[in-house]
Parts: sequence; structure tokens; C-alpha cells
Amino acid sequence: MGRSREFDSRHTKTMRALVVDPNLTFRSHSPDPAPTAGETIVRVSLAGICGTDLELMRGYMGYRGIPGHEFVGRVAETNDPKLRGQRVVGEINAACGRCGYCRSGLARHCAERTVLGILGRDGAFAEYLRLPDENLLPVPDSIPDETAVFTEPLAAAYEIFEQLHIARDHPVVVLGDGRLGALIALALKREGYLPVVAGHHHEKLGRLASLGLFASLEQDLKERFDYVVDCTGHGDGLRRATELVKPRGTIVLKSTAAAGAALNLAPLVINEITVLGSRCGRFAPALAAFEKGTLDPRPLIDGTFPLEEGAAAMEAAEKTSNFKILLKPS
Amino acid sequence: MGRSREFDSRHTKTMRALVVDPNLTFRSHSPDPAPTAGETIVRVSLAGICGTDLELMRGYMGYRGIPGHEFVGRVAETNDPKLRGQRVVGEINAACGRCGYCRSGLARHCAERTVLGILGRDGAFAEYLRLPDENLLPVPDSIPDETAVFTEPLAAAYEIFEQLHIARDHPVVVLGDGRLGALIALALKREGYLPVVAGHHHEKLGRLASLGLFASLEQDLKERFDYVVDCTGHGDGLRRATELVKPRGTIVLKSTAAAGAALNLAPLVINEITVLGSRCGRFAPALAAFEKGTLDPRPLIDGTFPLEEGAAAMEAAEKTSNFKILLKPS
Repeated sequence: MGRSREFDSRHTKTMRALVVDPNLTFRSHSPDPAPTAGETIVRVSLAGICGTDLELMRGYMGYRGIPGHEFVGRVAETNDPKLRGQRVVGEINAACGRCGYCRSGLARHCAERTVLGILGRDGAFAEYLRLPDENLLPVPDSIPDETAVFTEPLAAAYEIFEQLHIARDHPVVVLGDGRLGALIALALKREGYLPVVAGHHHEKLGRLASLGLFASLEQDLKERFDYVVDCTGHGDGLRRATELVKPRGTIVLKSTAAAGAALNLAPLVINEITVLGSRCGRFAPALAAFEKGTLDPRPLIDGTFPLEEGAAAMEAAEKTSNFKILLKPS
Repeated sequence: MGRSREFDSRHTKTMRALVVDPNLTFRSHSPDPAPTAGETIVRVSLAGICGTDLELMRGYMGYRGIPGHEFVGRVAETNDPKLRGQRVVGEINAACGRCGYCRSGLARHCAERTVLGILGRDGAFAEYLRLPDENLLPVPDSIPDETAVFTEPLAAAYEIFEQLHIARDHPVVVLGDGRLGALIALALKREGYLPVVAGHHHEKLGRLASLGLFASLEQDLKERFDYVVDCTGHGDGLRRATELVKPRGTIVLKSTAAAGAALNLAPLVINEITVLGSRCGRFAPALAAFEKGTLDPRPLIDGTFPLEEGAAAMEAAEKTSNFKILLKPS
């Protein structure tokens, strides 16, 4: 049986999915256009809901289609013998492969890219997804699905170390006790840094403390720090980070929200702060951390929903008392 | 004749000055408190008007007192034999000399500092000013007053090179054709970089071109750049710089204005931009550039006013067609 026919039967005709159009609905969906020769079809086992997904549903980037970019699945159809039958995770930026960014290993910044579930490419909240063969990485057997589904956000955490040298004897404030803040703190701790998670939610801070992290109510932080990672997801996060960072210090910006009305830039200039925007990262360091068993993200899972219950899943993901909500498409 | 009495007679009783209280007035002014043993009194020959001065007069930082932080003058009274009778310029941050920042050569970031004409210390728009002895640098005879008065803003330009390694074969966009943008472009050119000044004012861009700089209307810039220096002085500058910078590029932020309503931070994160706040710098590199005669800022002077005409001087400094306006207090 040829590739196209198998794809037709399994994927384009009958696939169940959550679709933003512009509201989120559960329905049958036929992706368009058809996959190209260099793409692999993956049957999604688990998908994670991220703050970006919630923003897409509120109209961020005018997205239309299937959201979702955190997943683990099994290869259903491929022309690449190395991928056949594999359990995989996938880097989410599908790039042109020819431009300067692609040639320099920064395909994540290719101007022609599509991005799984975010920009011009249907995502993971569906029975199947497709990505270029080279985006997919086999998952070692020692890593369970419930861990592997965190590979993409953990890679975003590890991206910080690719961009910035952090002195290990200086505390790093992780501003925001949400799902990304928790993962970044776990990554910092695993790599020997000194993270302090600062947030507003007693219960979540307590859970993070039980994972061996320093956790503090934000208003209790009285000193200033060399490094502050803004994972608040709120436009006010940068302003607050500016108050918490030392002169000549560094703020890592992970929140893609708009800054609150009229952000005062003077403190950034006067104190010569560096603000470093940080997004996706390579998957290899994240998989390596999982494989060695030294970073276990599963205590952050607060619910797993079938696709049919997408609306309830999103509601659970919006709740500030929850860390990570998963979807189980198949 | 003792130090205190000479100071009394020359300075505290009869000194003419421009004072913000909260409006700018020309009057006699008695500074308070009296100078300490480690301070030197300088008779101001020339002072430059900077965008920060104009903002202070609009209420920035709630400043009360004499503004002005760009100056050249002659030592009138000192306990330091090396300074006696010297023509001097002065670093504007008067620091505690004991904290971690002071000990590491970053007295400019001392939390206890006063700042000449900006924070807790009367400034240069007056017959006399006082600064700690160690803040003052003798001016070589080869540098005329009209050049030396640019030392402070040129040091702010050179601060960029202290903070950031810039590749010399990549163009640097200087966003803003004002007084600071012009000086930064001259400094970049002198150090062998490739500055492109981008602005909105035909006449000023023409003058900058006649100084050997690449100058362009901002709307004519169609590509993106690795480095953008925001010298617009406007809150909208950071947004515009974000549009002009390449993914993984660097924005140097020199504008201390508040960002326009609801700055969208997503492009900084998605494109992993570095934003580097940059303020004052060491004076030595600026004086060295002037001494070698390879950087002449005097074509930027668009008027020199006596203190009595302070209001007219500020009006001239506000005009977008002018670069630098000077005051001549004595």
C-alpha cells in the first residue's frame, strides 16, 4: 500500500481533532495541504496544553486550525526507515532548510518556517500530525509517554543555557509559579544552579517545595538578584522583573504577552539591564535529562482528558491552581 | 585664605543658576548642604543641554534643584593638589566608594550615589558646581572647551563598546537623528564600525551625511539588522527597533522614556532579541577620541546661550531641527 492512500484512509478523512475556527470545537478535520514526500505522519499518544495554546484560543496571532505543539506519539507513516514504527517527539519549527538561519543551525528562526499548532501548520490536539522527517527524534524506551510529552517545554527551559552563561553561585529567580516556571526551575536545579520560584499561589509553591525547589511568595523577596526569568505569562512580568533584578543584571523573557500600559523603560537603561528574549530550544538536552532520570516532570500533571473533552481540558488548563493538563487523542 | 570662606564668598551666596522648582527659573541660588572635604568646586565654562534635562523639567524623577550634567570648567577651589587650577570635565555619579559596585569599578551603579543635576546633587547650569575630587579629569590643552563639553555624552556612546562586542562587518542602525544619535554614530564610525543613522528629519540627516555618516530616512530601511541602537528618546523607539532587528539580534536601549501603551513583547521572545540598557560610561575613552582629533563634535553645536537666557536655550534644545545647545554660565 502506497503512502498517500494509507494517509488518506487514516488521517485526512476521519481524523478527530480540536480546531480553532475561531472558537475551539471538537470535530472531524481534513488537513490541507497534503503531506509532502519529506514528511512523516505521527499518531499522537499524549499532548500537553501550554499557555500559548490558551492565548491562540483568545486570538493570539489570528491562528486558525488545530492547536497543540507539545506531544509524544508513534510514527504511523514515513518514507524514512530510521523513523518507521518509532515512538517520537518533534521539534515544532518546520524550516526552509536553505536560508542563512537554517544553514547556521538556527532553523528555529527561519523566516519561511511553519510552526506546529502555532503558525501555518496543524498541531497536536488531534489523532495525527505531520512534521518533516528531520524534526522527529526517537524517544528512548526508558522515558515514559507522561515524561516525554514534556520534551518541548523542557527544551524551551534548556534554551536559556544555550543563550546565557549563568554563574552557578548566584541565585536565579524564576518569576511565576505556573507550568513553565516549574519546569525551568527543575531544569535549573538539575543543572546545578540555584533557582528560587516566586509566585502568588500558596498551594503550588508548596508543591514545588515538595519537589526540592526553593519557593517563595513573590512579595517576600526583598533583595535583588543577578538573574530573573520572567515566566509569568503576563504583560506585567517584565516590570516586576525589572524591580527584582540588580543593576547590570539579566532578565530572561519567556512571556509572550503584551506589556502592561506604558512600561517605563528608564530602569532598564539606568540600571543597564540585559533583557534576553528566549523561546524554543533543541530537544536533545531535554531528552538527555529525562533519560538519566534526574528530572521527573510527572508530578506536574494535574489531569488527562480525551479529545472529546477539549473544552473541559482547556478550562482545567486555565485554572491557576493547576500545572500541566494533558490530552490523550488516541 | 581657608577653603570654606573662599567657597562661601564665591559660591553659596551669589551664584547665578537655572533652578527647577518645579518650573525652570533663573535666579540666585544657595546650594545645600555645604561641600565636604573630598569635594572640589568647579567654575563652569560651558554646559550642554541633554534630552534628560528637558525631561527633568517635565517632571521626570521629580527633580528639584539645578539641572545639567554635561560641562567643562576650571577648578575654583580644591584640596587636591593635582586638580588645582586645572581645566576639567567630571563623571556625574558621586558614589559611596565602599559597596560592591564601587569596589568592582562600577560606581556608576552604586545604590547610594547622587548624580550631578539628576539625583540629589545640583548640576552644571550654574556658575559653580561641586563633585568629588576623584570624579574630575583634567582636559588636555589640545581639546577646546566646545569639544570637551561633549565628553559626558560621548562617554555614554563609548559605554556601548564596554558592554557589547559588535562585529565590525555588520551595519549598526542608530535609530534617531537627535543629539545622542549623532554622537553615537560618530563614535561608531571612529571605531571602525558601520553606522547607519535613521531618522525623520531631512535637514539633520543631510548634515549628518556631510559629516561622512550614512544617513537614511527611517521608512526607507527595508531590511533587518543585527544591531539597532535606540536613541529616539521616545517610548515608541523600542517597538520600532524590534521591527528593524534580525532574529537573535541586539537592541541597545538609550531612551529613558516610557514605552508606548501596551508594548507587545512577543516579538522579543519569538525572535530571541537581546535588549541591552545602556547609560553613562567612563570618560577616558571619550577624552582619548577627542585628543587624537579624530572625532570633532563641534558641527553639532546649534547655539550657545548665557544663563540669563535659559528659557530661550531650552526652547532651542526642544526644537527637533537642532542638535546641541550649550549654556555659557561664566
